[in-house]
Amino acid sequence: MSLSLYDITLPAFIRAFENLSAILKKGEAFADEKGLDHRTLLEARLIEDMGPLTAQIQRASDTAKFVAVRVGGIENVPMADDEVTFADLHARIAKTVDLLKAVEPSAMDGKDETEVVLKTSSGSTTFTARNYVLGFAVPNFYFHVTTAYAILRHKGVPLGKMDYLGPRS
Amino acid sequence: MSLSLYDITLPAFIRAFENLSAILKKGEAFADEKGLDHRTLLEARLIEDMGPLTAQIQRASDTAKFVAVRVGGIENVPMADDEVTFADLHARIAKTVDLLKAVEPSAMDGKDETEVVLKTSSGSTTFTARNYVLGFAVPNFYFHVTTAYAILRHKGVPLGKMDYLGPRS
Repeated sequence: MSLSLYDITLPAFIRAFENLSAILKKGEAFADEKGLDHRTLLEARLIEDMGPLTAQIQRASDTAKFVAVRVGGIENVPMADDEVTFADLHARIAKTVDLLKAVEPSAMDGKDETEVVLKTSSGSTTFTARNYVLGFAVPNFYFHVTTAYAILRHKGVPLGKMDYLGPRS
Repeated sequence: MSLSLYDITLPAFIRAFENLSAILKKGEAFADEKGLDHRTLLEARLIEDMGPLTAQIQRASDTAKFVAVRVGGIENVPMADDEVTFADLHARIAKTVDLLKAVEPSAMDGKDETEVVLKTSSGSTTFTARNYVLGFAVPNFYFHVTTAYAILRHKGVPLGKMDYLGPRS
């Protein structure tokens, strides 16, 4: 048996978003228990020029979504990055997961060498879909999920590695 | 074309270790420039009950190494977790990368359903190799690489996402 581009991306991203939702709930419960304004966590950053918690969720969402769009072939659903509450972040995650679930596993078959152009503020990079997934999307996705976890841990939310990895299947 | 367990693990881990080495060099240069004792970074943590920078490198090393051992079938090389300097961390990374490079890509072929038993302090979990890689090793590996990056960023080391993702291939 071998793996497809689908196998190594969207199911793992959906699972990570489920874990991330549970992590955010623990963050919210911690804030309530300590009497902290939710913004203390939502706007928290590891250092001033890194994105806050909200931005980490937005970037994880975008990274996952664009695999579904660029490799899975579904139409892009623009998201405004206007989340300011925990409820907003849960809605963003739910909307992203719905979109990921709309991709048929077979839609990525045979796409390994398909050209993917990634535009950034500094220009554009052309990848094969395979290199885009393995060299950009997967590490970038886990970067933002881990950074969200790290921000909450840094703020004292009681989390452990199993919250990040999720229950064993 | 489809992907093998090898394709989605060891080459990406080797690349991430190259990026991590460059990140550590920037950390060391920053400490020297600011006149900081290297231990200020090496022993830095995001919160007291998380592992310090050295431990993040050790866990990334272990996570990658055990894919090579448990799925790639090479013999385990015990590592003592006694790194205390940047030079020690570079040596640990080099030793780990050598070990990953010793695995023949074909050694993981057909191993998707092979049983992998993961022992932890709280018991043991049995995975298929495929679930071990996708549901544990890959997310856990990027967790520790990202946390190393996050610790250095939090301490003020000038790093950007491209340091984590590495040069575009």
